[in-house]
Amino acid sequence: MIATGVIVEYNPFHNGHLHHIKESRQKTGADVVIAVMSGHFLQRGEPALLNKWARTEMALKNGVDLVIELPYPFATGYSQEFAHGGVALLEALNCKFISFGSEHGSIERFKATYNAFNAHSDELNKTIHESVKSGISYPQALNKAHQHLEQKYNLQLLDLSKPNNILGYHYFEEIQKQHAQIEAVTIQRIAAGYHEQIDVQKNIASATGIRKELFENKKIHAIEQFLPSKSYSILENTSKFVNWDDYYPYLRFTILRFTATQLQEYVDITEGIENLLIQAAKQCETFEQFMQKIKSKRFTWTRLQRMLTHILTGYTKEMKETIQSPSYIRVLGMTEQGQKYLKEQKKNIQLPVVNKVGKDFENLLMLDIRATDLYMLGSSQGQIGMDFRTPPIRIQKKADL
Amino acid sequence: MIATGVIVEYNPFHNGHLHHIKESRQKTGADVVIAVMSGHFLQRGEPALLNKWARTEMALKNGVDLVIELPYPFATGYSQEFAHGGVALLEALNCKFISFGSEHGSIERFKATYNAFNAHSDELNKTIHESVKSGISYPQALNKAHQHLEQKYNLQLLDLSKPNNILGYHYFEEIQKQHAQIEAVTIQRIAAGYHEQIDVQKNIASATGIRKELFENKKIHAIEQFLPSKSYSILENTSKFVNWDDYYPYLRFTILRFTATQLQEYVDITEGIENLLIQAAKQCETFEQFMQKIKSKRFTWTRLQRMLTHILTGYTKEMKETIQSPSYIRVLGMTEQGQKYLKEQKKNIQLPVVNKVGKDFENLLMLDIRATDLYMLGSSQGQIGMDFRTPPIRIQKKADL
Repeated sequence: MIATGVIVEYNPFHNGHLHHIKESRQKTGADVVIAVMSGHFLQRGEPALLNKWARTEMALKNGVDLVIELPYPFATGYSQEFAHGGVALLEALNCKFISFGSEHGSIERFKATYNAFNAHSDELNKTIHESVKSGISYPQALNKAHQHLEQKYNLQLLDLSKPNNILGYHYFEEIQKQHAQIEAVTIQRIAAGYHEQIDVQKNIASATGIRKELFENKKIHAIEQFLPSKSYSILENTSKFVNWDDYYPYLRFTILRFTATQLQEYVDITEGIENLLIQAAKQCETFEQFMQKIKSKRFTWTRLQRMLTHILTGYTKEMKETIQSPSYIRVLGMTEQGQKYLKEQKKNIQLPVVNKVGKDFENLLMLDIRATDLYMLGSSQGQIGMDFRTPPIRIQKKADL
Repeated sequence: MIATGVIVEYNPFHNGHLHHIKESRQKTGADVVIAVMSGHFLQRGEPALLNKWARTEMALKNGVDLVIELPYPFATGYSQEFAHGGVALLEALNCKFISFGSEHGSIERFKATYNAFNAHSDELNKTIHESVKSGISYPQALNKAHQHLEQKYNLQLLDLSKPNNILGYHYFEEIQKQHAQIEAVTIQRIAAGYHEQIDVQKNIASATGIRKELFENKKIHAIEQFLPSKSYSILENTSKFVNWDDYYPYLRFTILRFTATQLQEYVDITEGIENLLIQAAKQCETFEQFMQKIKSKRFTWTRLQRMLTHILTGYTKEMKETIQSPSYIRVLGMTEQGQKYLKEQKKNIQLPVVNKVGKDFENLLMLDIRATDLYMLGSSQGQIGMDFRTPPIRIQKKADL
């Protein structure tokens, strides 16, 4: 069986995702589509709208055959770390292809960019380093360095101001770094930009736009057109969507409970930001106010939110040092086809497959179990200890596509 | 001016406290009565009903001239630590007397007990140690050891099953240990036992009984007869009284955010109780359920609550090691008479007097500032940073007594 992997958050699963799954399946001739999906905290440093099992169900009902959890450190890491975890898991699962959406849409350009960056890596790193030192964020610095190379050597490179091109680039880079066998393909994203408002004339909107609409408009009906019905019906049955507002009281308490020195123990807390966090926690009653208070040119909004996520979930630098790569395959859900694939590949899969969390589990899995418990304390999305009690979601009949 | 000191919590200030102040003033011929009072977390390991400034006002309106804050580590410590901090502050303030309430009521018996315990200290410690090892709590063990001495040497000692006798004994012991000049006197407690239900036939009830009535009955009028009117009117104007229920969401989140090993860093977390705390936090939705789950013969309810207070406020063993004795005198409030005393004693007071918390403050004071901020997050008793913005409460006219 040919397996094609995707790395996703599905927050929530929308028409763009459906398009990506369909196109990926067709383009690669896949028998099975495997999604490595983030758990309860996401790459933008945010809690997920819905718990991971609800999002798994969305995926399985819309063409994905197997959902594997991307462990917390990768799901909430920098783009490189996110890509590292995702690629490693898809490779361990013996996927023949990894398919990602990008603004550019042709894999050749990714290859060319990777090769150019490799050929001029010293120059690239120097330029990035200088830009970051001058006070701009890493993504901006990367983009600037890339324009510099493009002009100097008269190259045609990827537009790295586009978020999905960047992420795709990191997947491509990780495949090379890991000497992975998996082959990269890319599907061009259609219609919606990443951060755009929803456009009622279309049936495609970004997850960011959809979430914005959900929280600001609060009329779930307004987003119906952008979601497959099997995803929409799950959203429709959700009483309350989760966002940072639900965790701000806990975050604020946690920040004020620590000294600045203690806060430095958490991942990404660097450059004296701990004092600013304490000041802001003292003054700000809401998460929005808090973010407005701490934002600056030096840090992207996303990077700040990731710091806060790590403080919230107690993810320390000390723990991070012990973590290299995913060390198990946690199955969140599967169709019959997905199950068949796991059976077929049983002997070839290079990591232990965890269908049910037992009493003994690795440190890495502990982070996801804890993230679940803390997520549940701030939301009405389930109970403490659900990781132990929730078997993989199973969809009996493969969704019609 | 003759100053007489008392060590108090006033949670809340009631008729028994008024009686104690009046008797102390009369018995010692005091010109000024100084109360060393706990801040927002108390010796039983509980948050205070009302914030420390409201309790200061109660004290000043009912015969106390000067209220000094007992810093967090002493206010929430074992009886010995509580006594240590209180006696050291009253001594530093040059009080001529310390006056405490006790069930026994005669200072001679405290002296005799102290001498007997000193003469047989090895035997006493051995007996206590064996009892604690066998699984009973420290107060029970102390009481048992004392009965053993009494019978063996035919002595008449204090009844150490009575909580105020125990506390008074520790005051007495601390005076000797610190070679303090302060002289101990005791006032016999009247009418109410410590843990009793309120008795509507009387006008004296314990603070424990009053709090029980406030939270269970929820009719504030039921406690009016037990409080001086100037204390009752402050309670009457309080919209919500604080208790552990207000902090359980934060406590639960904090416990589940840590590993067992990390929980061991907090003061009093010993003997493997950290695992039980994590288990209980997973299962229990309310503080009451949580306490029922963790209680055992080995630990008194109070000791467990103190552990939880230290986890809640982030008080670590590492911090505790840096703390010996109070290192400043924090004035929470004063009458004109109290202010006059401070002026008169200016040059004799052995510690810096803090009327207003500025930008630079000691580690010890940081603990109280933080305790205030965390207390405010769980209650509607004030805002973050009140320690910086609240000058000492001043009562212009000395209360008529």
